[in-house]
Amino acid sequence: MDKITVLGLAAGALTTFSFVPQLVKIVRSKSTHDISLAMYIVISTGILLWLIYGLIISDIPVIVANAVALFITIAILSLKIRYH
Amino acid sequence: MDKITVLGLAAGALTTFSFVPQLVKIVRSKSTHDISLAMYIVISTGILLWLIYGLIISDIPVIVANAVALFITIAILSLKIRYH
Repeated sequence: MDKITVLGLAAGALTTFSFVPQLVKIVRSKSTHDISLAMYIVISTGILLWLIYGLIISDIPVIVANAVALFITIAILSLKIRYH
Repeated sequence: MDKITVLGLAAGALTTFSFVPQLVKIVRSKSTHDISLAMYIVISTGILLWLIYGLIISDIPVIVANAVALFITIAILSLKIRYH
């Protein structure tokens, strides 16, 4: 695997898993007052489109990264609606 | 432009601009208590790597989307530190 591919995979891993600390913070605090509902609706829709795009072009990294990210952003969205 | 490219561009536009309502919410409320500092440090780093990746592979959509997203996530990160 060349260095450019490694850079792309590192970038994808960071952006995908960046939502984990936000999810953990909400689960612990049960508070979502400052979280934007619109942001998580728009980003979850965008990530779903990325996932469909990955499935169409049969790109495993795009599929995996976006499936994981979608799971996490939908969890944050659900908690935002629940604790609203 | 084929339908698959349009789908990819739509996905990129949604995930890039999803951070705008969060930034607007913070600017208005001046409150970032529920926002995860770790999330915005990790995602800004990841987006910076995406931007470098885009520059290396000379991919205009990857460069533009990540340059815009980086600007917005760094603004959110700065406000999180300021209002902490």
